[in-house]
Amino acid sequence: MTSLGSLYASDGNRLELKTNMNVDYVINYKIPVEAKAEAEAGFSQLIAVLTKAGLASEVRPGINNSSVLVFVKVASNRYLKSKIYRERVQDWLYGVRIKAPEKGVDRVFEDEPVSDAERLRMVYLLLTNPKNDGGAGLTPKTGQWKYIDSIFPLHNHEFNRHWIKQWSSKYVLSEEDLDQIRDKFGEKIAFYFAFLQAYFTFLLFPAAFGFGAWLILGQYSWIYAVVNSLWSVIFFEYWKKKEVDLAVQWGVRGVSKIQHPRTEFQWDHEGTDPVTGEPIKIYSPLKRLQTQVLQVPFAVICVLILGALYVFCFSIEIFLSEIYNGPFKSYLTFLPTIILSGLLPTLSSVLGNLAEKLTGAENYETHDGHESALITKIFIVNFITSYLPLFLTAFVYMPFGNLLVPYLDIWKITAEKISSSEKISTQGFEINPDRLKKQIIYFTVTAQVVNLALEVVVPYLKRKIFQKVKEVQSEMAQKNGNDMTSVQDIPEEAAFLARVRKEAGLDVYDVSGDYREMVVQFGYLSLFSAIWPLTPMSFFINNWVELRSDAMKIAVSSQRPIPWRADSIGPWLSALGFLSWFGSLVSFSIVYLFTNDPEGPGGSPSNIKAWGLLLTILGAEHIYLAAQFAVRYVMNQIDSPGLQKERAERFSMRKHMLEETLGQDITEKPELPDVHTGEKITRAALEDEARRESTVGGGTPEIKFWQRQQGAEETASVGRDLISKMASGNKTAKA
Amino acid sequence: MTSLGSLYASDGNRLELKTNMNVDYVINYKIPVEAKAEAEAGFSQLIAVLTKAGLASEVRPGINNSSVLVFVKVASNRYLKSKIYRERVQDWLYGVRIKAPEKGVDRVFEDEPVSDAERLRMVYLLLTNPKNDGGAGLTPKTGQWKYIDSIFPLHNHEFNRHWIKQWSSKYVLSEEDLDQIRDKFGEKIAFYFAFLQAYFTFLLFPAAFGFGAWLILGQYSWIYAVVNSLWSVIFFEYWKKKEVDLAVQWGVRGVSKIQHPRTEFQWDHEGTDPVTGEPIKIYSPLKRLQTQVLQVPFAVICVLILGALYVFCFSIEIFLSEIYNGPFKSYLTFLPTIILSGLLPTLSSVLGNLAEKLTGAENYETHDGHESALITKIFIVNFITSYLPLFLTAFVYMPFGNLLVPYLDIWKITAEKISSSEKISTQGFEINPDRLKKQIIYFTVTAQVVNLALEVVVPYLKRKIFQKVKEVQSEMAQKNGNDMTSVQDIPEEAAFLARVRKEAGLDVYDVSGDYREMVVQFGYLSLFSAIWPLTPMSFFINNWVELRSDAMKIAVSSQRPIPWRADSIGPWLSALGFLSWFGSLVSFSIVYLFTNDPEGPGGSPSNIKAWGLLLTILGAEHIYLAAQFAVRYVMNQIDSPGLQKERAERFSMRKHMLEETLGQDITEKPELPDVHTGEKITRAALEDEARRESTVGGGTPEIKFWQRQQGAEETASVGRDLISKMASGNKTAKA
Repeated sequence: MTSLGSLYASDGNRLELKTNMNVDYVINYKIPVEAKAEAEAGFSQLIAVLTKAGLASEVRPGINNSSVLVFVKVASNRYLKSKIYRERVQDWLYGVRIKAPEKGVDRVFEDEPVSDAERLRMVYLLLTNPKNDGGAGLTPKTGQWKYIDSIFPLHNHEFNRHWIKQWSSKYVLSEEDLDQIRDKFGEKIAFYFAFLQAYFTFLLFPAAFGFGAWLILGQYSWIYAVVNSLWSVIFFEYWKKKEVDLAVQWGVRGVSKIQHPRTEFQWDHEGTDPVTGEPIKIYSPLKRLQTQVLQVPFAVICVLILGALYVFCFSIEIFLSEIYNGPFKSYLTFLPTIILSGLLPTLSSVLGNLAEKLTGAENYETHDGHESALITKIFIVNFITSYLPLFLTAFVYMPFGNLLVPYLDIWKITAEKISSSEKISTQGFEINPDRLKKQIIYFTVTAQVVNLALEVVVPYLKRKIFQKVKEVQSEMAQKNGNDMTSVQDIPEEAAFLARVRKEAGLDVYDVSGDYREMVVQFGYLSLFSAIWPLTPMSFFINNWVELRSDAMKIAVSSQRPIPWRADSIGPWLSALGFLSWFGSLVSFSIVYLFTNDPEGPGGSPSNIKAWGLLLTILGAEHIYLAAQFAVRYVMNQIDSPGLQKERAERFSMRKHMLEETLGQDITEKPELPDVHTGEKITRAALEDEARRESTVGGGTPEIKFWQRQQGAEETASVGRDLISKMASGNKTAKA
Repeated sequence: MTSLGSLYASDGNRLELKTNMNVDYVINYKIPVEAKAEAEAGFSQLIAVLTKAGLASEVRPGINNSSVLVFVKVASNRYLKSKIYRERVQDWLYGVRIKAPEKGVDRVFEDEPVSDAERLRMVYLLLTNPKNDGGAGLTPKTGQWKYIDSIFPLHNHEFNRHWIKQWSSKYVLSEEDLDQIRDKFGEKIAFYFAFLQAYFTFLLFPAAFGFGAWLILGQYSWIYAVVNSLWSVIFFEYWKKKEVDLAVQWGVRGVSKIQHPRTEFQWDHEGTDPVTGEPIKIYSPLKRLQTQVLQVPFAVICVLILGALYVFCFSIEIFLSEIYNGPFKSYLTFLPTIILSGLLPTLSSVLGNLAEKLTGAENYETHDGHESALITKIFIVNFITSYLPLFLTAFVYMPFGNLLVPYLDIWKITAEKISSSEKISTQGFEINPDRLKKQIIYFTVTAQVVNLALEVVVPYLKRKIFQKVKEVQSEMAQKNGNDMTSVQDIPEEAAFLARVRKEAGLDVYDVSGDYREMVVQFGYLSLFSAIWPLTPMSFFINNWVELRSDAMKIAVSSQRPIPWRADSIGPWLSALGFLSWFGSLVSFSIVYLFTNDPEGPGGSPSNIKAWGLLLTILGAEHIYLAAQFAVRYVMNQIDSPGLQKERAERFSMRKHMLEETLGQDITEKPELPDVHTGEKITRAALEDEARRESTVGGGTPEIKFWQRQQGAEETASVGRDLISKMASGNKTAKA
């Protein structure tokens, strides 16, 4: 299928796929012709800093005479292990791990061996951490290291082959599958697959129900909307719990707060960490808050710019497809699509840059914080581009169409001016009742298929063409008598190096793109699926493929990703929550508008009862919130195995510690003074007190008070005496 | 002012107020005339179980010949201390305390001495815990111990005097004041005062703003409603944080989950606690959930029954005050009030019993769980009785008055039938625009004052009368030649015993009544204060008095409360949150209806734009939710000192533990292999590997791969060589 895939197909047992030559990372170092000297000096420095950071290196010719490949591995395994041990201890100190690491490095690794992901993450930190943190301080493509094109680990092709093969023959991923992904690619990617798997499994229900609804209830069904909304609540609450569970199970809970600080972070002043007592760099959260407020104008700008573009294209489209009847109509209908696809990427990237600048100004301490804030902003853009067309159709075109059409005369006049003809022939406007359904089918089927194709086919073609170009280039170079041919690979390494060069040419895998796809899909489901109840079915099928194609994408058409840790799906969680809630408003409004008649208000707002629509929204939202409350309550009643494990581990740790430091004091039950000693002790103590008091001088009413009745027997008898006197007294009184 | 207060007033330095004779608890044991023998046997048993539980006892005559007073104290202080030590260790095991207790009982109590509250709680547990838990198993007023009227600790009058005196001379309670309350009366009561103090302080702003609004904006002001709603959000979020902070500071966070199990709890099966591994009794949470669902019909029943009563009284009231014009009008207008005050207590107590039964059926493991579920149900009743009259006026009488008045003819007909007159004279009905304002003033001023009076005056009168009756009784008894007079108190104890007998006659303090009062008040503020902006001012003044009168109530007119622990204000928190949210809906609806005209819709619903009202509600709610989100976000940015302290303690505990158990391994930095050794180690390792491999046989491409370049210098030079070749090759190719 792809360049690496073809390797598998031909002969998977070939040596170059079986070994990574113990290489941890490969650095692709570019040698631009125009800056040869500079690159050479940089290269020498590179080798020096690598060695200083405790890394061994080998160099080989790179891709097409324009780069060298530096192979890196940790020089001393002992050093690496001690680093990993320190990280584990630190995790424990910050509460990420619950179980304290055992004493002695060796015993720790017996209990819990180093996973591939852990090793690779640690080596990557050695490569990129600043020098005063013991790293090599590499920053690809920037500053001193601008000629470093990429730093990437090598794929474990044996594992990948096994992985892909296994998945193509099973329906559901097990916990072990996820654990394997975690061990190889890190928690961040494992979380994506866990999420996708959970979402896919949950989709089964609405897919089946939606199919039934499509057969029996038809579109715009109240029942479907209610079930769909309830389902999204349950799924969201389920995932929120599941996520915590996985984080605990993987020992990464809370890791996003402590992991890799941003080098770009600028601090106000240095201070002492109130928790650890270590010196830290502080940036006032209130100052950051002031910058974060800028998100509001940012969102407004996004809505205005993108909204204007969509309204513009939408109005042209309506005019051309439903009013205009002049020449070239069949060609002209493509005009809005062309305008949109021409302008949208530009605008998106402009807004994306703005988002990045804003996030930079917000000045987060950690990469995770920065990334999460950036994703939130990008999501605003995604939200508008994904859902605005449907909003315009459902809430503008359908209700207000007839009112707004006269304004489209502006296009008629423009068209007349352009074509210099006196009169453009038009046809009578009528609301197209199928428009909404057609649009949703486009977004949920066509677009998904196109997207999948783009994800798989485009990178493939790109690589093929790129490769061809390179081949032609090097052929030409050979013809021109380039002496590079003399730098031939050693035959026994040639196949391995060829493979590494191919991996060097692959894309970097970005998990947030895949998250975005799924979250946007969830939005269609939650907001608009009442229009066409087959939506979940379509998504169910799509996601079955998606699960596998995403695995393929990682294994075959991307460089092996850096195995970062994560403790949740991050900002996407709030995006899901928002979409689920917003879905209750939107889907019920749509059902209210269209349930009696697929034409809905049929272009005239007077057909809508405003109070009815508002009451629907109000009702839907409150039922949604009540359902959420109930689901949350029920879920909280069921103990999550992860949290239980966490508590159990914490408890046993404390107990263990108690026994070690406190010893017998606690395990022994305190001896209870027996009936007689009890009082005796008291008396003894009191007599002591009496003696003490008498030396000081003064009577002690307290002692006298407690000495009136000596021992329990006397108390009992005095009491009985009192009682009998009382009762008889009362009797005489009553008599 | 009251019976104990008078003691203070006369001579606070009298001996009986200065010492509690080392008594921990007093048991008031009743001796009913008709069951003398049974009571006597029970008394003997009582002394026996007390002694067995390690408690010393003394007996004295009780109140008016009808009871004996059993004075109890712990026989061995060492035993008590070891109990308290075990509790502290257990707290730590369950994560309630963060700091592990030191080794050795004595050192622990040096660091953190036993507070009064801790001691009294522990002794109370010794008195009431089941026998197999080492307690005496006392259950006042039930079963075997039905003659035990009450078990109560004695007031510390010196502290109380000081406390009351101090508060009457300062405006704001400091942290130390709260700590003192906590040490004397336990966290549960300290939380109430902390809450009341925070609420009182926060009220200053709306009181001032409301006064300004009253002067400038008048009633039904949008601005006032917005400010008030925002204020309630901020207060609620502030308190939520503050509460956690206090719990951490007082070392009780999470205590509600572990403290005293209910004896009534019935379990399905025994199992093993997944956290601690101890055997526990399990009741399926899903089964409980099924019972909890019954709360929904319960709420419906409450609304129906109480709603019917209110509608009934309301309609009579309207008829009598605004339509009826016949004889006895001035007397008859009291009729609805009489009906209401006659039926409401009965209905409330019926519903209260129902709530108690329901909660019992829900079968909670702990007292805290039970109490909290019960309070939630009672709150439904409170909600209806407190706010329904205002709802009826604002949303039924004002908008629909003219439509509904014809239905009131039913009362006219009834009246005619009763009076047997042919025609009852009536007057034309007109909506009374002042009704709403009058009602809110009644609820926020009159009712508060009456309530305060009831809280202070009624118990006082009750006690006075009760005392008088007793005096007369005992006088009569004396006259009838009761030989009880022979059981005279020993003169030096007489004053002390008189004081104890007075305390035995006092009410038991129930903090939930005071909470209810404040939460209901908060509801008036949040829901209806836009009607009359002086509301917060009135509450501010009321609460200044309330803070002091509640302190007086505890110190002077109640038995000293059992010092229970608590980690929050419990179910009242959710009640506050609900009222704050619901307030945004209600207050904005009211403002919408009445802002242009205090008559509002003036009795005709046609004057209301339904969509306008719905849009107001929808807008208000979403602005509210957005504000809540923002406030919560901002508050989360500010680190709470309590949580910070918790984290710091956890960190230092772990660090400490680390140093103790892991020793040097971690404190030493791992040694970095220097430039040369780094490669040397690799080479040595590789050579080792080579030797090993060669004995196994077979070439190892990995070793060969890493041996091509021996050391960093060679790598660098080979690389430079490669680069120069490449670059020159490219140059010739380009040339």
